[in-house]
Amino acid sequence: MKVSELGEFGLIEMLARIIESEGAGHHPDLLIGIGDDTAAWEGGNSIQLSTTDMLVQDVHFTLDRITGRDLGWKSLAVNISDIAAMGGIPTSAMISLGLPSDTETEKITELYQGMAQIARRFDMAIIGGNITQAPQLIISPSVIGKVAKNRMLTRSGAKPGDLIAVTGHLGASAAGLRMLKENLSLDSQVSSTLSEAHFRPVPRVAEGQALARGGVKAAIDISDGLIADLGHICEASKVEATIRLRDIPVHPAAKAAFGEKALELALSGGEDYELLFTAPSEVIRGLRAEQAVPLHFSVIGEIKQGKPGKVNLINENGKQVRYKKGGWDHFNP
Amino acid sequence: MKVSELGEFGLIEMLARIIESEGAGHHPDLLIGIGDDTAAWEGGNSIQLSTTDMLVQDVHFTLDRITGRDLGWKSLAVNISDIAAMGGIPTSAMISLGLPSDTETEKITELYQGMAQIARRFDMAIIGGNITQAPQLIISPSVIGKVAKNRMLTRSGAKPGDLIAVTGHLGASAAGLRMLKENLSLDSQVSSTLSEAHFRPVPRVAEGQALARGGVKAAIDISDGLIADLGHICEASKVEATIRLRDIPVHPAAKAAFGEKALELALSGGEDYELLFTAPSEVIRGLRAEQAVPLHFSVIGEIKQGKPGKVNLINENGKQVRYKKGGWDHFNP
Repeated sequence: MKVSELGEFGLIEMLARIIESEGAGHHPDLLIGIGDDTAAWEGGNSIQLSTTDMLVQDVHFTLDRITGRDLGWKSLAVNISDIAAMGGIPTSAMISLGLPSDTETEKITELYQGMAQIARRFDMAIIGGNITQAPQLIISPSVIGKVAKNRMLTRSGAKPGDLIAVTGHLGASAAGLRMLKENLSLDSQVSSTLSEAHFRPVPRVAEGQALARGGVKAAIDISDGLIADLGHICEASKVEATIRLRDIPVHPAAKAAFGEKALELALSGGEDYELLFTAPSEVIRGLRAEQAVPLHFSVIGEIKQGKPGKVNLINENGKQVRYKKGGWDHFNP
Repeated sequence: MKVSELGEFGLIEMLARIIESEGAGHHPDLLIGIGDDTAAWEGGNSIQLSTTDMLVQDVHFTLDRITGRDLGWKSLAVNISDIAAMGGIPTSAMISLGLPSDTETEKITELYQGMAQIARRFDMAIIGGNITQAPQLIISPSVIGKVAKNRMLTRSGAKPGDLIAVTGHLGASAAGLRMLKENLSLDSQVSSTLSEAHFRPVPRVAEGQALARGGVKAAIDISDGLIADLGHICEASKVEATIRLRDIPVHPAAKAAFGEKALELALSGGEDYELLFTAPSEVIRGLRAEQAVPLHFSVIGEIKQGKPGKVNLINENGKQVRYKKGGWDHFNP
């Protein structure tokens, strides 16, 4: 069977089974292995976190469309976002880099300047890595972080009765990508907001920690798209979800650019790097009352018992809406 | 300037300077950043270690020449070896994988079986990673480990007066590669020993810990070749080294296959994954007396004050030998 027939998530399941059956799925300090936003293990006073996400030239980016600095920023941002989704504090990055011999060093300088910028923004250090020759640019960072022992957010923490909520606004990154691909000429402020959302996402690190402090137990960052990532929570937590279309916080710039179509981008465009979380209503009330960190979020639905992994959409009239399986599968895009 | 003009080590230096000048070189818990076998940071009762090393199809391996299981084994072995060189205990691996959509899942199954095999051998777990589409197979593992607080081996720990020693034998992996490339037909036992050395290196994990327990402070694993890696120790420690050709433990199978030429493979072939270390003579005597772990090593020279990074070779007649700058530079192979 080809990898494309199995799909990304089928492949991950297959590999997890191999690792398990070969006896390499556990060690005594391990808390979370394959299947959450990061791995987690006991490390003295706190829990240690680690995540990795590879970007490949002409698959995830083309060098004529993104600057070296933006590419450096984004390649770490997507990894830092996974730490944020665990309620963690990112501390370090390791960078594994593949590149052609004829790459200009100027390009690599810009790449590392972008990485260093986002690292400094989050008080992180770039602590190592390796460099090797490759036919195209390959950036494979891993980001390391930590989280206090009783403060970890996981995909498997959602419970029937929980409300579903999401930080910030959705759809701007996907709108930015479409704008670039279709070469649209938009109002300059809309255009720069969408570009920024696509090229310079800001991981919700403080927000993840505020959620954990406020008693939230379940979260994921939105990289594959709202519906797909909510599906990941529902699978891991063995629950079903219902969300209301009218409550989805569609990004105003995405609306300005694409009108009614923006909702679709918000539902399944992906790369928003906002945090999707679930919690009992009293925890949500507590988060609203919390003044220390202003936390912008919208409640968009509820978790219930039901078919594990199932996500239902309800329209303005309270009717269930059918949708194509949304989100980004790396082998069935 | 092109990356190839700067070379791998020049590029690493350049990147380290950028990271430093952009203020992303440190965080409070960091003990070792860029420039050693692994990064190291404070993690409660022990020091946490992390390393990463990328393998790219048709640069580091060709799929017609290595089995999936050997490739999986070796891709983790080279990373585990870096943990061993710090005196550490490897605990976990994260695997970032890029692969074409038309890859057979069978191939990926074998790859992960090989990874799981070596993970199990060292009581490690494979705890996460990510999978994405790519034009060729890319394996970017990171391996995490730990080491007791006063037991860390570093490249910068060599001192004038130290003896230089190396575990096991050298040159078998490079001999194996040459045998395969030149399609040589050798005695079957020699042939299988050389293949094994090249495809299934066994990182010296117990040996690294025994060295650290015995009071050794400086070590590196031999991946680039004896001369090059000794040069790395001498640069980091700001010392000069002299080694005697007659004391180099050339692998018997490499000698059987290549006679006098085997010495060159032992000096600069690389991929031996033995541990090169330096220590005062009383520490070396203590290591020899240690019975708990049988530790096979050869003393091959001495560290002295002098030109940082310089390595001198002395022949049978006590004369200094000139040599080409050995070892493996990923951009000037």
